Amino acid sequence: MTFDGKFTQADKQELEKLAATCRGDILKCTSLAASGHPGGSMSTIDMLLTVYKFANISPENWESTTRDRVFVSNGHVSPCVYSALGRNGFFDIDQAIGEFRLAGSIYEGHIERMVKGVEWTTGNLGQGLSAACGAAIAGKIRDEDFNVYCFMGDGESQKGQISEARRFAVQHDLTNITAFIDYNKLQISGNIEEVMYQNIKDDYAAAGWHVICVDGHDFEKLYGAIAYAHTVDQPVLILAETVMGKGVSFMENIHGYHGKPLTEDQLADALKELGIENDLDKYKKIRADFVYDPSHHEISAPEVKVKYANKEYGLDVKTDCRSAFGDAIYELVKNSQEDGMTPFAVFDCDLAGSVKTDKVEKDFPVNFIQSGIQEHHTATTAGSASCNGVVSFFADFGVFGVDEVYNQQRLNDLNGAGIKTVTTHVGIDVGEDGKTHQCLDYVGAMRNIFGYRVIVPADPNQTYKAVCYAAENPGNFLVAMGRSKINTIADESGSKPAFGKDYTFEYGKVDVLREGDFAIATYGAMTGRALQVADILAKDGIKAAVLNCSAPLHPDMEAFEKYENMPVFVYEDHNEFTGLAATLANKFADEGTGTRLVRFGARGYAYSGKPDDILKLIGLDPATVAEEIKSELK
Amino acid sequence: MTFDGKFTQADKQELEKLAATCRGDILKCTSLAASGHPGGSMSTIDMLLTVYKFANISPENWESTTRDRVFVSNGHVSPCVYSALGRNGFFDIDQAIGEFRLAGSIYEGHIERMVKGVEWTTGNLGQGLSAACGAAIAGKIRDEDFNVYCFMGDGESQKGQISEARRFAVQHDLTNITAFIDYNKLQISGNIEEVMYQNIKDDYAAAGWHVICVDGHDFEKLYGAIAYAHTVDQPVLILAETVMGKGVSFMENIHGYHGKPLTEDQLADALKELGIENDLDKYKKIRADFVYDPSHHEISAPEVKVKYANKEYGLDVKTDCRSAFGDAIYELVKNSQEDGMTPFAVFDCDLAGSVKTDKVEKDFPVNFIQSGIQEHHTATTAGSASCNGVVSFFADFGVFGVDEVYNQQRLNDLNGAGIKTVTTHVGIDVGEDGKTHQCLDYVGAMRNIFGYRVIVPADPNQTYKAVCYAAENPGNFLVAMGRSKINTIADESGSKPAFGKDYTFEYGKVDVLREGDFAIATYGAMTGRALQVADILAKDGIKAAVLNCSAPLHPDMEAFEKYENMPVFVYEDHNEFTGLAATLANKFADEGTGTRLVRFGARGYAYSGKPDDILKLIGLDPATVAEEIKSELK
Repeated sequence: MTFDGKFTQADKQELEKLAATCRGDILKCTSLAASGHPGGSMSTIDMLLTVYKFANISPENWESTTRDRVFVSNGHVSPCVYSALGRNGFFDIDQAIGEFRLAGSIYEGHIERMVKGVEWTTGNLGQGLSAACGAAIAGKIRDEDFNVYCFMGDGESQKGQISEARRFAVQHDLTNITAFIDYNKLQISGNIEEVMYQNIKDDYAAAGWHVICVDGHDFEKLYGAIAYAHTVDQPVLILAETVMGKGVSFMENIHGYHGKPLTEDQLADALKELGIENDLDKYKKIRADFVYDPSHHEISAPEVKVKYANKEYGLDVKTDCRSAFGDAIYELVKNSQEDGMTPFAVFDCDLAGSVKTDKVEKDFPVNFIQSGIQEHHTATTAGSASCNGVVSFFADFGVFGVDEVYNQQRLNDLNGAGIKTVTTHVGIDVGEDGKTHQCLDYVGAMRNIFGYRVIVPADPNQTYKAVCYAAENPGNFLVAMGRSKINTIADESGSKPAFGKDYTFEYGKVDVLREGDFAIATYGAMTGRALQVADILAKDGIKAAVLNCSAPLHPDMEAFEKYENMPVFVYEDHNEFTGLAATLANKFADEGTGTRLVRFGARGYAYSGKPDDILKLIGLDPATVAEEIKSELK
Repeated sequence: MTFDGKFTQADKQELEKLAATCRGDILKCTSLAASGHPGGSMSTIDMLLTVYKFANISPENWESTTRDRVFVSNGHVSPCVYSALGRNGFFDIDQAIGEFRLAGSIYEGHIERMVKGVEWTTGNLGQGLSAACGAAIAGKIRDEDFNVYCFMGDGESQKGQISEARRFAVQHDLTNITAFIDYNKLQISGNIEEVMYQNIKDDYAAAGWHVICVDGHDFEKLYGAIAYAHTVDQPVLILAETVMGKGVSFMENIHGYHGKPLTEDQLADALKELGIENDLDKYKKIRADFVYDPSHHEISAPEVKVKYANKEYGLDVKTDCRSAFGDAIYELVKNSQEDGMTPFAVFDCDLAGSVKTDKVEKDFPVNFIQSGIQEHHTATTAGSASCNGVVSFFADFGVFGVDEVYNQQRLNDLNGAGIKTVTTHVGIDVGEDGKTHQCLDYVGAMRNIFGYRVIVPADPNQTYKAVCYAAENPGNFLVAMGRSKINTIADESGSKPAFGKDYTFEYGKVDVLREGDFAIATYGAMTGRALQVADILAKDGIKAAVLNCSAPLHPDMEAFEKYENMPVFVYEDHNEFTGLAATLANKFADEGTGTRLVRFGARGYAYSGKPDDILKLIGLDPATVAEEIKSELK
């Protein structure tokens, strides 16, 4: 079926019948769970069914990259999504109804990507249109032709991230996006016009979208609107006038039904009105018989094929890690133009020159996605793109790529995505931009996000290899680096780079840059300084081992074993309580080793100025650290 | 001076002369620092000077709550802000020029609140209009009459948070807000129209603002526009057409000067063109003579006066902590109506019924601020309100009040604000809403934010007292709680509430609920369950001490001293690596106690369902925990 034909009376009858069935499903599953959101589910279902009937998406083509995509942004309408998918054969609908919101089931309160047919885990409002843009931009880069549908609530339209996504869609000519707003005019607190002033139609028109107003419960008109949307050379919003609780007289237009299910008695009445059999007992039995299997919750991160070179920065080279990132991403994108390689999308938020993606922008404009000063949108859209057949890099300053978009990154993790976030300008090393721009939590923030891996390379050589590693391996990565130029790190002999041609990056591996009698654990912009500390101490005959932990969340603890009976000194350009020191504290506490930690890290927000000057003021320069280590060892 | 009079030729001449001086300041300080943002500073300065000349704000009335407010959202135009303030007598301008971007100086790269005249620390774009709304709404609650001016960049307009602030200003009739956009049409990546599609004028008009277009370098027209704005019964945007680098021929309209200072030779040419003396040597000397004083960076958090009752929930009462919060906030707001008390602002994001601020909404509508589904805006506006004479509560679900607005909270901290964030629905206890709504990092996220204090009360009694404590004490607090109804915690005798009438909340105090031979450390929704664990173990003659740590970031470690030679078991509804267990690991590592920690916390995102069912599936129910403790102790 397609939207290119004619909508027949038979289509209408089929959809009407199916919609009644689905409304029954919605009411049964929410009543059974005694929780959930029936109201919006019943106002959205007619639109959703129209799309699933005619769009190029089915259980059979679900793995195809050219299928149409359906995103549902207001994830709390899970009952209608499960019903639409189940009734279209994506899975056993009875199971979904019976297990809805039952501990251990995949049919969660908000839609999750582990359910077949769900493109993106949502529930934190305002992110769905960005995710839809991610699929659309990936399709554009891959030169694939498909439609992207995105369903949203009307109260949700208040979220600022949506205004960013709107602009992005127009800027990048994502004319294959058709968005729907379930305009039932009610949100939790009541009438949307009373809760918060907004003018949805004009908002979209001002942003360059074409807006079609339609009755969201009239299948024929919906079909016509979607068919017309496909002919419009702009992104299109279908602003669908709907009725919350549609189909059950006593629920209609009652905002209390946003998040309140019916009692069993009310359910009986409602099903009667819908002409649907009351078979709740059948579902009670399914619920009682549910068998928990944690593997159902696993999502496999996207696999990719990339190609890179083995580059080495010599000991005579002084550059910044971000330039090494620039070299690596350029090489990766260049090679991705070859047949058989996964295409790249490199997202920028108006900082290409600083984060060094400008060479990609110049030579591979198709793979460079200017996203404006719109970080929330960009983090989501880059995450979603990674699930749609491209290697997706999001390069930004630390405070924007980590702090500002912390929840978007959390959702990328929940989605099992494969975003490669590269943050330059982390730590005090951000320099003159000062407090507001000091990302002192690039390790500590991400520790909360279970699946994210963090790499903080020590020099340009390690940066280059780490970026290629992140590109090649599945999953979400943060590669974080400072702003300043630094020396290439030499190996213990001093004659060649520690991370040169012969070095292979391994996630979690601790690099023993100097052997010694006790350990200084470090990473990133502090590794070079830790070597200076070791040199200073050596003059007094004190032998410090320098352990570079490029994966500060997951260092291989074997390297520490021989040093656990001495204090371990942690030297990091990071909040002293949440970075590598916290990782080591956790590890030592798990084993009860009794190892004492001495922290050299940020004790507060620092200042605006040259990094070396700031470090000196706050006692984190190599000379002061060496002095303190000496007095600790006395 | 006011905007009610007539703009004279003398005014014009004075402003023109001052503007040339300021352009000189801007160029000198950035060249001296060899970093900073001259381009936008030179396009903004004329507007800023016009406002400072005529608005009711001066060094003399700076402490007055009825002064006009000037917010500058694009904090990177710090050179023009320092110049405008310095030349208007707020501080010694020579010092600001000489120390600009020098490590340890308060004249940082982005404007910071410790500088007299700066209302709000900015630099992460898109937050200034929200901060301005915070001052305006506080004024409205306090029934004070002043104007609020807010300066923004044009590239910055892409940020979604601004669309939220726009709506909020209209919804709450903040007609005293006059915003300016420095419409120089250039951002870092080039022409704003090429970088990202936007239609600023229509965006504001669609949102219900009145828009005035004006030449941003014509003082008379600017004066007229502002005077007119004051008569308009809507929030007003002055869209000021400006020239980046205005005033120096070779800088004008060159986007490279966004963030690039002049060389000394170029500076000499520019000063000549501006007719300003080249006295760079004077400033070099000031810079060389700079004396660092960390106390200059201190900001005092706002003091308040509140009144509350001593409430007790009996052992027979079963309620949820959020209802106790509802009772406390109602009592506080009610008492704040008395003379001499600080007024309250209670911010809601469309969840009043769930977070229990609905009684305040009903009885004290002036103090209840509906903010829609716009968390980013709300976190900032509530933070700013707290610095403008109200006690500011922001109540939301955990994922929205912590995760979604993490960076806004970080900026609240940087601002030394006094926001009281109350998050209900944290942890697995969120229940059926599932993974997307599980805030498992309410401790771990906030640990990164240096000044924030976190309280996670154990029961309704402790919640009530904690909320009153947070209201009364200066600074930013998070009070976090689960969703479910729980038992009132009894003291060891079992005969009366542990946190009843005689109990005084103390931040950091560890409550020893049961004495024993080893410790179970816990808090929040797990405290009741930890007592169950102790009861189970007691049957086998094993005596577990239960230590309730209501301040999981800062527990008083004295309570642990006697248990440090045994394993400490941590039982928390939180990511097991970033909550209380991480705090204790850090503390033990600092002392090298060798205490072994055994973690009972979330090892990943959990499921959607009844909390007890979920805990059982993932091995965190009291019976399983008791079993594991037994086997650990064997």
